[in-house]
Amino acid sequence: MNGQFIVEGNKMIHELLQSSYHYTHLFATENYLDEYPTLNNSLDSRFSTLSQSEMKQISHLTTPPGVLAVVDIPTGSPDMDVCSHQWVLALDGINDPGNLGTIIRTADWFGIRHIFCSRDTVDAFHPKVVQSTMGSVFRVVVSEIELIDLLQYASKKNLPVLGAMMKGEPPETMSQLAGILLIGSESHGIRNHLLPHISHPVTIPRFHSAVEAKPESLNAAVAAGILMAVCRGFEHI
Amino acid sequence: MNGQFIVEGNKMIHELLQSSYHYTHLFATENYLDEYPTLNNSLDSRFSTLSQSEMKQISHLTTPPGVLAVVDIPTGSPDMDVCSHQWVLALDGINDPGNLGTIIRTADWFGIRHIFCSRDTVDAFHPKVVQSTMGSVFRVVVSEIELIDLLQYASKKNLPVLGAMMKGEPPETMSQLAGILLIGSESHGIRNHLLPHISHPVTIPRFHSAVEAKPESLNAAVAAGILMAVCRGFEHI
Repeated sequence: MNGQFIVEGNKMIHELLQSSYHYTHLFATENYLDEYPTLNNSLDSRFSTLSQSEMKQISHLTTPPGVLAVVDIPTGSPDMDVCSHQWVLALDGINDPGNLGTIIRTADWFGIRHIFCSRDTVDAFHPKVVQSTMGSVFRVVVSEIELIDLLQYASKKNLPVLGAMMKGEPPETMSQLAGILLIGSESHGIRNHLLPHISHPVTIPRFHSAVEAKPESLNAAVAAGILMAVCRGFEHI
Repeated sequence: MNGQFIVEGNKMIHELLQSSYHYTHLFATENYLDEYPTLNNSLDSRFSTLSQSEMKQISHLTTPPGVLAVVDIPTGSPDMDVCSHQWVLALDGINDPGNLGTIIRTADWFGIRHIFCSRDTVDAFHPKVVQSTMGSVFRVVVSEIELIDLLQYASKKNLPVLGAMMKGEPPETMSQLAGILLIGSESHGIRNHLLPHISHPVTIPRFHSAVEAKPESLNAAVAAGILMAVCRGFEHI
Protein backbone atom coordinates (compact mmCIF):
# COMPACT_ATOMS: atom_id res chain seq x y z
CA MET A 1 0.00 0.00 0.00
CA ASN A 2 2.76 2.36 -1.03
CA GLY A 3 1.75 5.99 -1.20
CA GLN A 4 -1.58 5.44 0.53
CA PHE A 5 -2.95 5.59 4.05
CA ILE A 6 -5.99 4.37 5.94
CA VAL A 7 -8.66 6.40 7.69
CA GLU A 8 -11.42 4.90 9.81
CA GLY A 9 -14.55 6.01 11.58
CA ASN A 10 -17.45 8.28 10.95
CA LYS A 11 -15.77 11.56 11.77
CA MET A 12 -12.63 10.82 9.76
CA ILE A 13 -14.60 9.67 6.70
CA HIS A 14 -16.75 12.79 6.94
CA GLU A 15 -13.63 14.95 7.02
CA LEU A 16 -12.15 12.98 4.11
CA LEU A 17 -15.24 13.55 1.95
CA GLN A 18 -15.09 17.29 2.70
CA SER A 19 -11.38 17.46 1.81
CA SER A 20 -9.51 17.56 -1.47
CA TYR A 21 -7.85 14.22 -0.69
CA HIS A 22 -8.42 11.42 -3.18
CA TYR A 23 -9.40 7.95 -2.02
CA THR A 24 -9.31 4.76 -4.05
CA HIS A 25 -11.42 2.49 -1.82
CA LEU A 26 -14.22 3.08 0.65
CA PHE A 27 -15.56 0.19 2.72
CA ALA A 28 -18.47 0.04 5.12
CA THR A 29 -20.42 -2.66 6.91
CA GLU A 30 -24.20 -3.02 6.46
CA ASN A 31 -24.58 -2.06 10.11
CA TYR A 32 -22.71 1.17 9.54
CA LEU A 33 -24.86 2.08 6.54
CA ASP A 34 -28.02 1.40 8.53
CA GLU A 35 -26.79 3.74 11.26
CA TYR A 36 -25.43 6.46 8.95
CA PRO A 37 -27.51 6.26 5.76
CA THR A 38 -26.27 9.68 4.56
CA LEU A 39 -23.06 7.99 3.43
CA ASN A 40 -25.14 6.48 0.60
CA ASN A 41 -25.21 9.91 -1.04
CA SER A 42 -21.43 9.90 -1.43
CA LEU A 43 -20.97 6.44 -2.88
CA ASP A 44 -19.55 5.56 -6.28
CA SER A 45 -17.67 2.67 -7.87
CA ARG A 46 -14.92 2.98 -5.27
CA PHE A 47 -17.33 1.71 -2.61
CA SER A 48 -17.85 -1.87 -1.39
CA THR A 49 -19.65 -3.34 1.58
CA LEU A 50 -17.75 -5.67 3.86
CA SER A 51 -18.89 -8.14 6.47
CA GLN A 52 -18.00 -7.40 10.10
CA SER A 53 -15.31 -10.08 10.05
CA GLU A 54 -13.76 -8.78 6.81
CA MET A 55 -13.74 -5.29 8.33
CA LYS A 56 -12.05 -6.64 11.43
CA GLN A 57 -9.26 -8.05 9.27
CA ILE A 58 -8.37 -4.77 7.57
CA SER A 59 -9.07 -2.40 10.46
CA HIS A 60 -6.24 -1.08 12.66
CA LEU A 61 -8.60 -0.50 15.57
CA THR A 62 -9.56 -3.06 18.19
CA THR A 63 -13.21 -2.05 17.80
CA PRO A 64 -13.59 -1.36 14.06
CA PRO A 65 -16.00 1.53 13.56
CA GLY A 66 -17.44 -0.05 10.41
CA VAL A 67 -16.20 2.42 7.82
CA LEU A 68 -12.72 2.66 6.33
CA ALA A 69 -11.11 4.37 3.33
CA VAL A 70 -7.82 3.92 1.50
CA VAL A 71 -6.52 7.38 0.66
CA ASP A 72 -3.70 8.62 -1.58
CA ILE A 73 -0.86 10.41 0.17
CA PRO A 74 -0.52 13.74 -1.65
CA THR A 75 2.64 14.06 -3.69
CA GLY A 76 4.92 17.05 -3.92
CA SER A 77 6.41 18.96 -1.00
CA PRO A 78 5.82 22.56 -0.06
CA ASP A 79 8.65 24.99 -0.59
CA MET A 80 10.32 25.91 2.67
CA ASP A 81 9.70 29.49 1.64
CA VAL A 82 6.27 29.17 3.34
CA CYS A 83 7.96 29.98 6.66
CA SER A 84 8.63 33.52 5.48
CA HIS A 85 4.89 34.16 5.18
CA GLN A 86 3.42 32.29 8.15
CA TRP A 87 4.33 30.47 11.32
CA VAL A 88 5.25 26.83 10.72
CA LEU A 89 6.19 23.99 13.04
CA ALA A 90 9.41 22.01 12.77
CA LEU A 91 9.58 18.68 14.60
CA ASP A 92 12.91 17.03 15.35
CA GLY A 93 12.40 13.32 15.92
CA ILE A 94 8.98 13.13 17.56
CA ASN A 95 8.41 9.38 17.66
CA ASP A 96 5.15 8.80 19.50
CA PRO A 97 2.29 8.53 16.98
CA GLY A 98 -0.27 9.92 19.44
CA ASN A 99 1.91 12.95 20.12
CA LEU A 100 2.40 13.69 16.41
CA GLY A 101 -1.32 13.30 15.74
CA THR A 102 -2.18 15.62 18.62
CA ILE A 103 0.37 18.18 17.46
CA ILE A 104 -1.18 18.15 13.95
CA ARG A 105 -4.65 18.62 15.51
CA THR A 106 -3.44 21.52 17.68
CA ALA A 107 -1.64 23.16 14.74
CA ASP A 108 -4.91 23.04 12.79
CA TRP A 109 -6.72 24.72 15.71
CA PHE A 110 -4.20 27.57 15.71
CA GLY A 111 -4.19 27.97 11.93
CA ILE A 112 -0.72 26.53 11.35
CA ARG A 113 -0.84 24.97 7.88
CA HIS A 114 2.64 23.45 7.52
CA ILE A 115 4.66 21.09 9.66
CA PHE A 116 8.19 20.13 8.65
CA CYS A 117 9.53 16.92 10.20
CA SER A 118 13.02 15.49 10.45
CA ARG A 119 13.37 12.24 8.54
CA ASP A 120 13.29 10.16 11.73
CA THR A 121 10.00 11.63 12.93
CA VAL A 122 7.22 9.04 13.01
CA ASP A 123 5.37 8.78 9.67
CA ALA A 124 2.50 11.26 9.57
CA PHE A 125 0.36 8.70 7.74
CA HIS A 126 0.84 5.96 10.34
CA PRO A 127 -2.70 4.84 11.25
CA LYS A 128 -2.35 5.93 14.90
CA VAL A 129 -1.13 9.37 13.87
CA VAL A 130 -3.95 9.79 11.37
CA GLN A 131 -6.65 8.75 13.86
CA SER A 132 -5.38 11.03 16.62
CA THR A 133 -5.43 14.07 14.30
CA MET A 134 -9.25 13.80 14.43
CA GLY A 135 -9.41 14.91 10.79
CA SER A 136 -6.77 17.62 10.91
CA VAL A 137 -4.49 15.46 8.74
CA PHE A 138 -6.60 16.71 5.81
CA ARG A 139 -5.96 20.39 6.57
CA VAL A 140 -2.32 20.51 7.69
CA VAL A 141 0.49 19.68 5.27
CA VAL A 142 3.13 17.52 6.94
CA SER A 143 6.36 16.97 5.04
CA GLU A 144 9.79 15.53 5.68
CA ILE A 145 12.84 17.69 5.23
CA GLU A 146 16.42 18.06 6.38
CA LEU A 147 15.66 20.44 9.22
CA ILE A 148 19.10 22.01 8.98
CA ASP A 149 18.23 23.27 5.48
CA LEU A 150 15.02 24.84 6.77
CA LEU A 151 16.77 26.51 9.69
CA GLN A 152 19.62 27.81 7.53
CA TYR A 153 17.05 29.28 5.18
CA ALA A 154 15.30 30.96 8.13
CA SER A 155 18.59 32.33 9.48
CA LYS A 156 19.44 33.84 6.11
CA LYS A 157 16.04 35.51 5.96
CA ASN A 158 16.30 36.72 9.57
CA LEU A 159 13.14 34.86 10.49
CA PRO A 160 12.60 34.07 14.16
CA VAL A 161 13.34 30.45 15.08
CA LEU A 162 11.88 29.58 18.47
CA GLY A 163 13.35 26.43 19.96
CA ALA A 164 11.82 24.60 22.92
CA MET A 165 14.78 23.95 25.22
CA MET A 166 15.61 23.08 28.81
CA LYS A 167 17.27 26.47 29.31
CA GLY A 168 15.60 29.37 27.60
CA GLU A 169 13.40 32.36 28.29
CA PRO A 170 9.71 32.04 29.20
CA PRO A 171 7.65 32.14 26.00
CA GLU A 172 6.14 35.46 25.00
CA THR A 173 3.77 36.52 22.26
CA MET A 174 5.79 37.19 19.11
CA SER A 175 5.05 40.33 17.14
CA GLN A 176 6.34 38.71 13.93
CA LEU A 177 3.68 37.06 11.81
CA ALA A 178 6.00 34.41 10.38
CA GLY A 179 8.71 32.11 11.63
CA ILE A 180 9.50 28.63 12.87
CA LEU A 181 8.58 26.94 16.11
CA LEU A 182 11.00 24.03 16.62
CA ILE A 183 10.12 21.15 18.96
CA GLY A 184 12.51 18.33 19.82
CA SER A 185 11.86 14.68 20.50
CA GLU A 186 10.25 13.37 23.69
CA SER A 187 13.48 11.87 25.01
CA HIS A 188 16.36 13.86 23.51
CA GLY A 189 15.04 17.33 22.74
CA ILE A 190 16.45 19.26 19.79
CA ARG A 191 19.61 17.83 18.24
CA ASN A 192 22.86 19.70 18.80
CA HIS A 193 23.59 20.60 15.19
CA LEU A 194 20.32 22.54 15.00
CA LEU A 195 20.88 24.62 18.14
CA PRO A 196 23.04 27.39 16.58
CA HIS A 197 20.11 28.34 14.33
CA ILE A 198 17.69 29.01 17.19
CA SER A 199 17.15 32.76 17.57
CA HIS A 200 14.78 32.49 20.56
CA PRO A 201 15.41 29.62 23.01
CA VAL A 202 12.20 29.23 25.00
CA THR A 203 11.35 27.20 28.09
CA ILE A 204 7.97 26.72 29.68
CA PRO A 205 8.70 27.62 33.32
CA ARG A 206 8.32 24.80 35.81
CA PHE A 207 6.84 25.56 39.22
CA HIS A 208 9.62 26.26 41.64
CA SER A 209 9.59 23.52 44.25
CA ALA A 210 11.82 22.96 47.24
CA VAL A 211 11.19 19.22 46.99
CA GLU A 212 13.92 17.21 45.30
CA ALA A 213 11.59 15.07 43.19
CA LYS A 214 10.33 17.10 40.25
CA PRO A 215 8.71 16.39 36.92
CA GLU A 216 11.42 16.19 34.28
CA SER A 217 9.46 17.34 31.31
CA LEU A 218 6.10 18.08 29.79
CA ASN A 219 4.46 15.79 27.25
CA ALA A 220 5.73 16.90 23.81
CA ALA A 221 2.22 17.58 22.47
CA VAL A 222 1.26 19.62 25.54
CA ALA A 223 4.49 21.64 25.33
CA ALA A 224 3.93 22.25 21.61
CA GLY A 225 0.33 23.32 22.33
CA ILE A 226 1.37 25.79 25.04
CA LEU A 227 4.05 27.30 22.81
CA MET A 228 1.69 27.59 19.83
CA ALA A 229 -0.88 29.33 22.06
CA VAL A 230 1.48 31.65 23.89
CA CYS A 231 3.98 32.52 21.14
CA ARG A 232 1.38 33.26 18.50
CA GLY A 233 -0.84 34.97 21.03
CA PHE A 234 -4.59 34.77 20.96
CA GLU A 235 -4.95 38.22 19.42
CA HIS A 236 -3.33 37.00 16.20
CA ILE A 237 -5.78 34.10 15.92
CA MET B 1 -5.65 -6.14 44.21
CA ASN B 2 -8.04 -3.80 45.94
CA GLY B 3 -6.54 -0.55 47.11
CA GLN B 4 -3.29 -1.04 45.21
CA PHE B 5 -1.84 -0.07 41.86
CA ILE B 6 1.03 -1.11 39.62
CA VAL B 7 3.98 0.92 38.47
CA GLU B 8 6.54 -0.27 35.95
CA GLY B 9 9.84 0.84 34.49
CA ASN B 10 13.03 2.39 35.70
CA LYS B 11 11.84 5.99 35.92
CA MET B 12 8.59 5.13 37.68
CA ILE B 13 10.31 2.89 40.23
CA HIS B 14 12.91 5.58 40.85
CA GLU B 15 10.12 8.11 41.49
CA LEU B 16 8.31 5.62 43.73
CA LEU B 17 11.39 5.08 45.87
CA GLN B 18 11.81 8.85 46.26
CA SER B 19 8.16 9.30 47.24
CA SER B 20 6.25 8.72 50.45
CA TYR B 21 4.14 6.01 48.76
CA HIS B 22 4.25 2.57 50.32
CA TYR B 23 4.75 -0.52 48.18
CA THR B 24 4.18 -4.11 49.20
CA HIS B 25 5.99 -5.91 46.37
CA LEU B 26 8.88 -5.04 44.10
CA PHE B 27 9.83 -7.37 41.26
CA ALA B 28 12.74 -7.22 38.83
CA THR B 29 14.33 -9.53 36.29
CA GLU B 30 17.99 -10.52 36.55
CA ASN B 31 18.58 -8.62 33.31
CA TYR B 32 17.18 -5.45 34.82
CA LEU B 33 19.37 -5.76 37.93
CA ASP B 34 22.45 -6.28 35.75
CA GLU B 35 21.61 -3.12 33.84
CA TYR B 36 20.61 -1.02 36.87
CA PRO B 37 22.58 -2.42 39.81
CA THR B 38 21.82 0.64 41.99
CA LEU B 39 18.39 -0.84 42.66
CA ASN B 40 20.18 -3.40 44.88
CA ASN B 41 20.71 -0.62 47.45
CA SER B 42 16.95 -0.21 47.91
CA LEU B 43 15.98 -3.85 48.30
CA ASP B 44 14.39 -5.46 51.33
CA SER B 45 12.10 -8.40 52.04
CA ARG B 46 9.46 -6.98 49.71
CA PHE B 47 11.70 -7.75 46.74
CA SER B 48 11.74 -10.84 44.53
CA THR B 49 13.38 -11.61 41.21
CA LEU B 50 11.19 -12.89 38.40
CA SER B 51 12.01 -14.63 35.15
CA GLN B 52 11.30 -12.75 31.92
CA SER B 53 8.27 -14.91 31.25
CA GLU B 54 6.86 -14.41 34.76
CA MET B 55 7.35 -10.67 34.33
CA LYS B 56 5.55 -10.80 31.02
CA GLN B 57 2.55 -12.37 32.74
CA ILE B 58 2.11 -9.64 35.34
CA SER B 59 3.19 -6.64 33.25
CA HIS B 60 0.62 -4.37 31.60
CA LEU B 61 3.09 -3.31 28.93
CA THR B 62 3.73 -5.10 25.65
CA THR B 63 7.48 -4.78 26.23
CA PRO B 64 7.87 -5.26 30.00
CA PRO B 65 10.65 -3.00 31.25
CA GLY B 66 11.80 -5.62 33.76
CA VAL B 67 10.90 -3.86 37.00
CA LEU B 68 7.45 -3.57 38.60
CA ALA B 69 6.04 -2.61 41.99
CA VAL B 70 2.68 -3.09 43.68
CA VAL B 71 1.88 0.14 45.53
CA ASP B 72 -0.78 1.06 48.09
CA ILE B 73 -3.30 3.67 47.00
CA PRO B 74 -3.20 6.34 49.72
CA THR B 75 -6.33 6.51 51.84
CA GLY B 76 -8.15 9.62 52.95
CA SER B 77 -9.27 12.48 50.75
CA PRO B 78 -8.17 16.08 50.87
CA ASP B 79 -10.63 18.63 52.15
CA MET B 80 -12.10 20.69 49.34
CA ASP B 81 -10.96 23.68 51.35
CA VAL B 82 -7.58 23.36 49.53
CA CYS B 83 -9.09 25.34 46.64
CA SER B 84 -9.27 28.43 48.81
CA HIS B 85 -5.48 28.42 49.20
CA GLN B 86 -4.23 27.29 45.79
CA TRP B 87 -5.33 26.60 42.23
CA VAL B 88 -6.78 23.13 41.78
CA LEU B 89 -8.08 21.24 38.76
CA ALA B 90 -11.56 19.76 38.53
CA LEU B 91 -12.17 17.17 35.81
CA ASP B 92 -15.69 16.32 34.70
CA GLY B 93 -15.71 12.88 33.08
CA ILE B 94 -12.31 12.68 31.37
CA ASN B 95 -12.29 9.08 30.17
CA ASP B 96 -9.11 8.60 28.16
CA PRO B 97 -6.38 7.20 30.44
CA GLY B 98 -3.59 8.85 28.42
CA ASN B 99 -5.31 12.22 28.71
CA LEU B 100 -5.76 11.94 32.47
CA GLY B 101 -2.13 10.83 32.92
CA THR B 102 -0.90 13.73 30.81
CA ILE B 103 -3.09 16.19 32.74
CA ILE B 104 -1.61 14.92 36.04
CA ARG B 105 1.90 15.31 34.61
CA THR B 106 1.18 18.85 33.40
CA ALA B 107 -0.43 19.83 36.72
CA ASP B 108 2.74 18.69 38.49
CA TRP B 109 4.84 20.85 36.14
CA PHE B 110 2.77 23.91 37.02
CA GLY B 111 2.74 23.20 40.75
CA ILE B 112 -0.91 22.17 40.95
CA ARG B 113 -1.09 19.68 43.83
CA HIS B 114 -4.76 18.65 43.82
CA ILE B 115 -7.05 17.31 41.12
CA PHE B 116 -10.70 16.62 41.89
CA CYS B 117 -12.45 14.23 39.51
CA SER B 118 -16.12 13.46 38.94
CA ARG B 119 -16.96 9.89 39.86
CA ASP B 120 -17.13 8.82 36.20
CA THR B 121 -13.64 10.08 35.38
CA VAL B 122 -11.25 7.25 34.49
CA ASP B 123 -9.53 5.77 37.56
CA ALA B 124 -6.33 7.69 38.32
CA PHE B 125 -4.62 4.41 39.28
CA HIS B 126 -5.44 2.65 36.01
CA PRO B 127 -2.06 1.34 34.74
CA LYS B 128 -2.20 3.49 31.58
CA VAL B 129 -2.94 6.62 33.58
CA VAL B 130 -0.14 5.87 36.03
CA GLN B 131 2.42 5.22 33.28
CA SER B 132 1.58 8.36 31.34
CA THR B 133 2.02 10.56 34.43
CA MET B 134 5.76 9.78 34.16
CA GLY B 135 6.00 9.76 37.95
CA SER B 136 3.78 12.75 38.67
CA VAL B 137 1.17 10.40 40.18
CA PHE B 138 3.37 10.41 43.30
CA ARG B 139 3.28 14.21 43.64
CA VAL B 140 -0.27 15.19 42.68
CA VAL B 141 -3.22 14.11 44.83
CA VAL B 142 -6.10 12.93 42.66
CA SER B 143 -9.43 12.33 44.41
CA GLU B 144 -13.01 11.64 43.45
CA ILE B 145 -15.72 13.99 44.59
CA GLU B 146 -19.20 15.21 43.67
CA LEU B 147 -18.04 18.17 41.62
CA ILE B 148 -21.23 20.08 42.39
CA ASP B 149 -20.24 20.14 46.07
CA LEU B 150 -16.81 21.52 45.22
CA LEU B 151 -18.24 24.21 42.94
CA GLN B 152 -20.90 25.22 45.46
CA TYR B 153 -18.19 25.57 48.07
CA ALA B 154 -16.17 27.74 45.69
CA SER B 155 -19.20 29.91 44.87
CA LYS B 156 -19.89 30.48 48.55
CA LYS B 157 -16.27 31.52 49.10
CA ASN B 158 -16.29 33.76 46.01
CA LEU B 159 -13.41 31.80 44.50
CA PRO B 160 -12.94 32.05 40.74
CA VAL B 161 -14.18 28.99 38.84
CA LEU B 162 -12.76 28.92 35.30
CA GLY B 163 -14.64 26.58 32.99
CA ALA B 164 -13.34 25.48 29.59
CA MET B 165 -16.32 25.97 27.27
CA MET B 166 -17.20 26.30 23.60
CA LYS B 167 -18.32 29.90 24.13
CA GLY B 168 -16.28 31.90 26.58
CA GLU B 169 -13.66 34.61 26.74
CA PRO B 170 -10.05 34.02 25.67
CA PRO B 171 -8.07 32.91 28.72
CA GLU B 172 -6.11 35.54 30.60
CA THR B 173 -3.69 35.42 33.48
CA MET B 174 -5.63 35.44 36.73
CA SER B 175 -4.51 37.73 39.52
CA GLN B 176 -6.08 35.45 42.15
CA LEU B 177 -3.73 32.90 43.64
CA ALA B 178 -6.43 30.30 44.31
CA GLY B 179 -9.42 28.89 42.49
CA ILE B 180 -10.68 26.07 40.34
CA LEU B 181 -9.95 25.26 36.72
CA LEU B 182 -12.76 23.01 35.46
CA ILE B 183 -12.26 20.83 32.36
CA GLY B 184 -15.00 18.76 30.78
CA SER B 185 -14.88 15.40 29.07
CA GLU B 186 -13.41 14.84 25.60
CA SER B 187 -16.78 14.29 23.98
CA HIS B 188 -19.39 16.14 26.05
CA GLY B 189 -17.59 19.00 27.77
CA ILE B 190 -18.77 20.20 31.17
CA ARG B 191 -22.15 18.86 32.32
CA ASN B 192 -25.08 21.26 32.41
CA HIS B 193 -25.74 21.18 36.13
CA LEU B 194 -22.22 22.50 36.80
CA LEU B 195 -22.41 25.45 34.41
CA PRO B 196 -24.18 27.92 36.74
CA HIS B 197 -21.19 27.75 39.09
CA ILE B 198 -18.63 28.86 36.50
CA SER B 199 -17.56 32.44 37.20
CA HIS B 200 -15.20 32.70 34.20
CA PRO B 201 -16.18 30.79 31.05
CA VAL B 202 -13.00 30.52 28.95
CA THR B 203 -12.40 29.36 25.39
CA ILE B 204 -9.09 28.87 23.64
CA PRO B 205 -9.61 30.87 20.45
CA ARG B 206 -9.59 28.88 17.23
CA PHE B 207 -7.94 30.37 14.17
CA HIS B 208 -10.54 32.09 12.11
CA SER B 209 -10.83 30.24 8.83
CA ALA B 210 -13.06 30.87 5.84
CA VAL B 211 -12.97 27.18 4.98
CA GLU B 212 -15.99 25.21 6.08
CA ALA B 213 -14.05 22.24 7.43
CA LYS B 214 -12.58 23.14 10.79
CA PRO B 215 -11.16 21.28 13.75
CA GLU B 216 -13.93 20.72 16.28
CA SER B 217 -11.89 20.66 19.43
CA LEU B 218 -8.49 20.45 21.00
CA ASN B 219 -7.26 17.33 22.75
CA ALA B 220 -8.41 17.57 26.39
CA ALA B 221 -4.87 17.32 27.80
CA VAL B 222 -3.58 20.00 25.42
CA ALA B 223 -6.48 22.31 26.28
CA ALA B 224 -5.91 21.75 30.00
CA GLY B 225 -2.19 22.45 29.54
CA ILE B 226 -2.80 25.71 27.69
CA LEU B 227 -5.29 26.88 30.31
CA MET B 228 -2.97 25.96 33.18
CA ALA B 229 -0.13 27.87 31.50
CA VAL B 230 -2.08 30.95 30.48
CA CYS B 231 -4.49 31.34 33.42
CA ARG B 232 -1.88 30.90 36.11
CA GLY B 233 0.63 32.93 34.14
CA PHE B 234 4.33 32.17 34.07
CA GLU B 235 5.17 34.95 36.52
CA HIS B 236 3.31 33.10 39.30
CA ILE B 237 5.31 29.93 38.70
